[in-house]
Amino acid sequence: MSKDLYKTSLTLLTDFYQITMAYGYWKQNKGEQKAVFHGYFRKAPFKGGYAICAGLGYVIDYINQFEFTEEDIDFLAKQKDNNGDVLFEKGFLDYLSNLKLSVNVHAVEEGRAIFPNEPFIRVEGNLIECQLLETAILNIVNFQTLIATKAARLRIAAQDDSLLEFGLRRAQGIDGGIAATRAAYIGGFDATSNVLAARLLDIPVKGTHAHSWIMSYDDEMKAFKAYAESMPTNCIFLVDTYNTLEGVKKAIEVGLELREKGHEMIGIRLDSGDLSYLSIEARKLLDKGGFPNANIVASNDLDEYLINNLKKEQDAKINVWGVGTKLVTAYDQPALGGVYKLGAIENEEGALDYKVKLSEQVNKISTPGVLQVRRFIDDNGKYSADGIYNEEHPMQENCTLIDPNNGIRSKRITENDKGEDLLIQIFKKGDLVYEKPSIHLSKEKTLTELSRFDNSVKRFYNPHEYPVGLEKGLYELKLEVINKLR
Amino acid sequence: MSKDLYKTSLTLLTDFYQITMAYGYWKQNKGEQKAVFHGYFRKAPFKGGYAICAGLGYVIDYINQFEFTEEDIDFLAKQKDNNGDVLFEKGFLDYLSNLKLSVNVHAVEEGRAIFPNEPFIRVEGNLIECQLLETAILNIVNFQTLIATKAARLRIAAQDDSLLEFGLRRAQGIDGGIAATRAAYIGGFDATSNVLAARLLDIPVKGTHAHSWIMSYDDEMKAFKAYAESMPTNCIFLVDTYNTLEGVKKAIEVGLELREKGHEMIGIRLDSGDLSYLSIEARKLLDKGGFPNANIVASNDLDEYLINNLKKEQDAKINVWGVGTKLVTAYDQPALGGVYKLGAIENEEGALDYKVKLSEQVNKISTPGVLQVRRFIDDNGKYSADGIYNEEHPMQENCTLIDPNNGIRSKRITENDKGEDLLIQIFKKGDLVYEKPSIHLSKEKTLTELSRFDNSVKRFYNPHEYPVGLEKGLYELKLEVINKLR
Repeated sequence: MSKDLYKTSLTLLTDFYQITMAYGYWKQNKGEQKAVFHGYFRKAPFKGGYAICAGLGYVIDYINQFEFTEEDIDFLAKQKDNNGDVLFEKGFLDYLSNLKLSVNVHAVEEGRAIFPNEPFIRVEGNLIECQLLETAILNIVNFQTLIATKAARLRIAAQDDSLLEFGLRRAQGIDGGIAATRAAYIGGFDATSNVLAARLLDIPVKGTHAHSWIMSYDDEMKAFKAYAESMPTNCIFLVDTYNTLEGVKKAIEVGLELREKGHEMIGIRLDSGDLSYLSIEARKLLDKGGFPNANIVASNDLDEYLINNLKKEQDAKINVWGVGTKLVTAYDQPALGGVYKLGAIENEEGALDYKVKLSEQVNKISTPGVLQVRRFIDDNGKYSADGIYNEEHPMQENCTLIDPNNGIRSKRITENDKGEDLLIQIFKKGDLVYEKPSIHLSKEKTLTELSRFDNSVKRFYNPHEYPVGLEKGLYELKLEVINKLR
Repeated sequence: MSKDLYKTSLTLLTDFYQITMAYGYWKQNKGEQKAVFHGYFRKAPFKGGYAICAGLGYVIDYINQFEFTEEDIDFLAKQKDNNGDVLFEKGFLDYLSNLKLSVNVHAVEEGRAIFPNEPFIRVEGNLIECQLLETAILNIVNFQTLIATKAARLRIAAQDDSLLEFGLRRAQGIDGGIAATRAAYIGGFDATSNVLAARLLDIPVKGTHAHSWIMSYDDEMKAFKAYAESMPTNCIFLVDTYNTLEGVKKAIEVGLELREKGHEMIGIRLDSGDLSYLSIEARKLLDKGGFPNANIVASNDLDEYLINNLKKEQDAKINVWGVGTKLVTAYDQPALGGVYKLGAIENEEGALDYKVKLSEQVNKISTPGVLQVRRFIDDNGKYSADGIYNEEHPMQENCTLIDPNNGIRSKRITENDKGEDLLIQIFKKGDLVYEKPSIHLSKEKTLTELSRFDNSVKRFYNPHEYPVGLEKGLYELKLEVINKLR
C-alpha cells in the first residue's frame, strides 16, 4: 500500500499523544517495558451479527515501512510548548531516529469473520512501539473491516448476481475511495469502476458510458450508435437519460445492428426511476427483441436492504448491481468503533501484570491477558462457537465458555468440536513471517467463511447471536483483576 | 497534496467509464469539441442551510499534476473485452500519453459558503478533458466540503471555545483522515491530533496522554506524577480512568507540586461519563484548589447538537472540545451528493448548444449555460441573496431572481445590493492563474463568511432558506431547453 501509493513516510500517521507518551516513557525509562495490546470492537456494525476482517494487508505494509525519517524528526523537533520552548529533548529524537520495530504481531486474516470482543490483532513488545502503532492500525482496520462487512452483506443480498462497486465520487477522500474498493472486493464484490484502485490492487475494472455521453449528441439513438461503433464489444447502454423504456427499444435496435456485425450487446443499465417496474418491462422487451441473455444492470442509491427487497419481494429482473455511496461510506454506520487496549504489562520482576480498563458500562470493560481466539467447528463443518483464552494458560478440551458481559450465560465445548486458532503470527521480533495472500484469495476466504455460519447469524434484522465466550479460567482472571482495582 | 503525499500518478483516480467514453469521443473525433460542465450539489448537508467550500487546494494539485504516465498507459493497454481482445487502440493510448490539459477552470474559493444548485466549479474545454476530471473533482470536493461544513456547524455550537479534531482512528482510510483534518481546520477548528496532517499541511497539533499511560502504572497518582515530571509544560491530565472526581483531586495535587517547580498545569480532560455534571464538579474542585484558569477538555462522541446542548441547556463548564468520529466521518450524513453536469456543448457551427439533464424530479433537472454566481451584499455588509446567471448574457442591475425549482418564487435585486462573483478563474488554458491562499487564510474566510449570514440561515434545525435564484433570462433559457427536449 504505502510503498506503491504514498511518497512520504506514514510513520507520523498517529495521534500526537502517542508521541508525547512515547517521550514520557522514554524519560521514565519505561520504553522497553514489555506490553501486550489487543485491537477489537465491541459491537458488530450495521446492527448485524459479525464483521469481515480487512485491512491487514495495509497494516503489514505500514509496519514494514515504519521508520522516523529526517522529515518526521525535523517536524517533531520544531514542536513547542506554551512557553515557546522545544517540547522534545534531542536524546528522544535520536532514539526515534534509530528505532527499529521489534514487535510480535498476531492477527486474524483478511476475509475471516470475527465477532464482538474478539481481538483482531495482538501487538506485543516494547511499550513505546506498541503505542506508536495504535492509531494507524485502528485507522486502517476500522475502515476496511467496516466496508468489507458491508460488502459481505450486499453479497448475501445479491446472491449469485454480479456486484460492481461504483463509489469513488462519493468516497471519503482519495484513499477513502481506494481502500473502500479494496475492502469491497475482499468482502465479495466482483469488480470496480475505480481505475487507480484496479491498477494498484489487481481488481477487475468495468465501465461503459454516462448520461453525458448521450447528452453530447443531438439524440439518444445517434449516441447509442456512436458508442456501438466505438466499442462494439463493450456495449451496456444507459437507457434512462430521457425515457427509459423508449431507451430500451433503441438499445435493442442498436443491438440488432451490432449482431449483424458479429457483436453481441452485453446489456442495458437503469440509473433512476422504479427499478422493479422498469427492469421487468425492460426484460420483456429484451426477451421479445431477441436478447434473452442481455444483462440488466441497475444503480442508484442501492444497499443490501433495497437489493434484497427488489429480488425477493418485487421480482425485479436485475442481475448486475452497481453499488456506490451506501457501500463505500458505509452510509448507515460510517465508523467502526474498534479500540486498542492494554491486556498485560511487564512488572519489575519481569512477570506479566494483567490489566483491564474499567468502565461503568460492563461491555466497555476490557479483557486482561495475552489473548487468542479459538473457533470450534462441528461435525458438519459449520462453526459452532468461538472461545477467547489467555495463551499463558492454554485452552483445555471440554472447556466452558462464559459470556464476557454476563457470567450467567455459558456454553460447554466437547471433544467433538474441532478448534482452530484465529490469530496468526504476522511479525516476529519486527520481521514479517507471514506470506500475504492475493486479494483474490482473501475474497474467496470471505465467501467460504460466510458459508460456514448459520443463516440466522447473517440476517440483516435481529441476527442470532453467535456464541463467543471467555474460557472459564480467563473469565475468572478478569473478575479477579476487576475486583483488585475496585 | 499528491505531490507531497502520493508517489504514484493519480490520473487514473477516475471511473472507468470516463476512459471508455474518452475512447469513444476520440474514435468519433469528438474529443476536441468544446464543452462546459458544472459541479454543484442539490441539497445542503445535515439538513442545514449551507455548505462551506473545501477541497479546491487538492483539485488544483490534481489538475496540475495530471498526466498519463507509462504505468497508467500500460495498465490501460492490458484491458480486454469479453472476447479477450484489447479494449483500446494504440492510437488512443498515444493520444492520452501526449495529452496536456488545456481546460479553463473557475471555482469558488475554499472557506466560502455556498448553497444548493450553485456551481462550486465550472470546467470548460475539450469534452475528453472535462470528462477525465469529473470523478476526482467530485471525490475531493464532495468529501472536504462535507467535513468543512460539519466543522463550521461545530464552530457555531462551540462559540469561542477551542475545538480540537481527534478523529484519525475512526476516519475512512489514511487520506480520509488527512483530508478530514484539513477540511476541519478550514471549517473553523483550531488544532488536530493527527501528526502527519499537521506536518504536511501546517496545522497546529495537540496531545498529552491516553488511558494506557495511566494503566501502565500501578496507580493513577504515580502516573500523573511521572507524566508531570516528563512533560511539565504540557500537562492536561486525563482524569477518568478509574473515578473521575478522585482523578481531578489527584490532578490538583500534582498541579500544586508542578507550580512549586514553576510550571502551570494546563488542565484536565474528561473522556466518559456525564460531561455536564462532571465538568461542573471538576470546575468547582479546580477553582477551590487554586486553578481557576485550568482548562476543562471534553471528548467522547461529541457533535454540534451535544455541544450546543451542553453549553446552552446544561451549563457545562467545558472550554475545550475534542471531536472525533462524528466530525471526520460526517456521521449523520457521510456523503455529499455533488454532481457534475453538462451545461453547454459546441455544435457543428462552433456555437454553444445549451444542455439540461431531464428528470422526473424538478430539483434534479440541471441548469444550462456557462454559469456564474453573483452574491449580493446589503448596506450592513450582510449577504442578501445569490443569483446564478449565464455569463454569455451578463447580469443586469435591477434584475429578478427566480427559484430554480419553483417559478412562482422570485426576488428583486436593486442597485443598492452590491454584487460579487463567486467563481474565480483558477486555470486558464491549462495553466494555473490563481495563487493558493494559506490554509490559515481559508479558515479565516470561513469565519468571516459565517459572520455575514443571518443566524436563521445557520440554525441546526429548520434553517431559514437563503435566497438563491436563477437570473430571469437564465430561468427562461432553462424552460426553453426543457420544452425543446420534451
